[in-house]
Amino acid sequence: MYRIGIDLGGTNVKAGIVDKDGNILIKSKIKTLADRPYEEVIKDMAKQCKKLIADLKISASEIEQVGIGCPGAVTGSTGVIEYSNNLNWKNVPMGEMLSSLLALPVKISNDANVAALGEALFGAGKKYDDVIMLTLGTGVGGGIIIGKKLIEGNESKGAELGHAVMCVGGELCTCGRRGCIEAYCSATALIRETKKAMEEDKNSVMWKLTDGNIDKANGLTAFDGEKLGDEAASKVVKQYVFYLSEAIMNYCNIFRPQAIILGGGVCAQGRNLTDRIVKLCKEGHYGFRGTPAVEIITAERENDAGILGAASL
Amino acid sequence: MYRIGIDLGGTNVKAGIVDKDGNILIKSKIKTLADRPYEEVIKDMAKQCKKLIADLKISASEIEQVGIGCPGAVTGSTGVIEYSNNLNWKNVPMGEMLSSLLALPVKISNDANVAALGEALFGAGKKYDDVIMLTLGTGVGGGIIIGKKLIEGNESKGAELGHAVMCVGGELCTCGRRGCIEAYCSATALIRETKKAMEEDKNSVMWKLTDGNIDKANGLTAFDGEKLGDEAASKVVKQYVFYLSEAIMNYCNIFRPQAIILGGGVCAQGRNLTDRIVKLCKEGHYGFRGTPAVEIITAERENDAGILGAASL
Repeated sequence: MYRIGIDLGGTNVKAGIVDKDGNILIKSKIKTLADRPYEEVIKDMAKQCKKLIADLKISASEIEQVGIGCPGAVTGSTGVIEYSNNLNWKNVPMGEMLSSLLALPVKISNDANVAALGEALFGAGKKYDDVIMLTLGTGVGGGIIIGKKLIEGNESKGAELGHAVMCVGGELCTCGRRGCIEAYCSATALIRETKKAMEEDKNSVMWKLTDGNIDKANGLTAFDGEKLGDEAASKVVKQYVFYLSEAIMNYCNIFRPQAIILGGGVCAQGRNLTDRIVKLCKEGHYGFRGTPAVEIITAERENDAGILGAASL
Repeated sequence: MYRIGIDLGGTNVKAGIVDKDGNILIKSKIKTLADRPYEEVIKDMAKQCKKLIADLKISASEIEQVGIGCPGAVTGSTGVIEYSNNLNWKNVPMGEMLSSLLALPVKISNDANVAALGEALFGAGKKYDDVIMLTLGTGVGGGIIIGKKLIEGNESKGAELGHAVMCVGGELCTCGRRGCIEAYCSATALIRETKKAMEEDKNSVMWKLTDGNIDKANGLTAFDGEKLGDEAASKVVKQYVFYLSEAIMNYCNIFRPQAIILGGGVCAQGRNLTDRIVKLCKEGHYGFRGTPAVEIITAERENDAGILGAASL
């Protein structure tokens, strides 16, 4: 038996047929064109699935389930996408509609949860039963996998791991609270601090790296500046790694997982990032000594994690 | 079939026979006398269990399992108490020894986890599947129950919900980190702030409430002072409730449970405490509006939660 995993994004719909060992046997990508009536998008998704089945030369009866990772607020139990900024959708009965078009059971979940599940089961986390995923992007997304199963919370609204306050009264977060992990550990926060450091030090090499245009600063600028020996850049990176380590220690103590997987653009730094986090965590933080080891690793399957996780719902 | 639940404490061993509906059919309490060789304590625990079985006039074959909540660091999978300050024990093979004395399977876990499980299944949380428990005592203990099952983390070392930092660089915590939830939301933290407020305001009614002796300040002093209209006391309570609300919001966003149960002495305040927390949480915090409701309630079975949870391991 096989499963279909669908990664529904604002720009593209990626779908694949996956076997039970997590091999993607075939996959395809179509444009979402989300500004159409949602019924048309869902019809195109059904066509995409049928074409994959035909191209792989299997029969639909060999597909046991279809899973979808959707952006925004979704409720797994009802299959409804309640709202999605990316798609500009409200109360879309995705599960029911796609299920009736394909005559197959459909499960849906939030895209961050789904990607975490894919990465946990078939990527960096495959050796482990209990994994926490933190995706450091525009925001900080989270995923909780315990006993190889996704923990989603009531109406799939949990695992908002970026929206736990680590600095009461601190930086304003996009969610309206102050001091959230997202406000210190997202790429957005790193860029904010990079720009602040550039404003404060007009001689920083970061100005050269951005062609003198502060708006070109991105999540790499401070890391690149540090490699060139720039003090202002190094300070930004050190502070970022410090906050990230504090957040990671929190999730070590809350979940005591076997591994914490970091995803998102910042993780292109690889061991340059994780080695520093591990060092800081070991340097005296309760929860990293005298307790079972927590591996701090970076994601391996970011492109396919959505399809793999959706197929595993 | 019945189960035996044992609540092993530094002073007393409480044990009971529990039916599958969570009724304690019989219970007893013996002195731990923990300064003896541990073998003697375990032998007395076996005797206590056998006496309960005899007194209830059932046969040992009607007991399917014995569970124990133990203070300190324990590993569920091996049944070993690795260390316990309360008992002054190290590497005690509790599970194995008691199992061989009773010829019954024995499961062990940490006492905070076990009490949370008892409260979740048969106390304030019995209506819910997913419950987070926060015990506000000398420290802040935690318990995570998802799908009516205890989530303990690797080697049972997770659910340290008091040791997540909510104020980076803040108050020093007993664990060595700075700014942990425990350092702001424990009874110890409340008393620390009460004393600080008394030092700063020699006219506070809290001095009268403590007979002019600051060392008599306890977890009730500020609440009692506030009821008498004392401004300094009111400030202490407001700040305490504020931090507690922030911590609770964090666990709403991380787990999106159906309920958060508060235990420990502070919760004698009941609705006077929880109504204020709910009000603060609703006043603009992301995670408490437009998301599934989280009930904030106080524990109901604190005396028996240990026995009930141990019987449910």
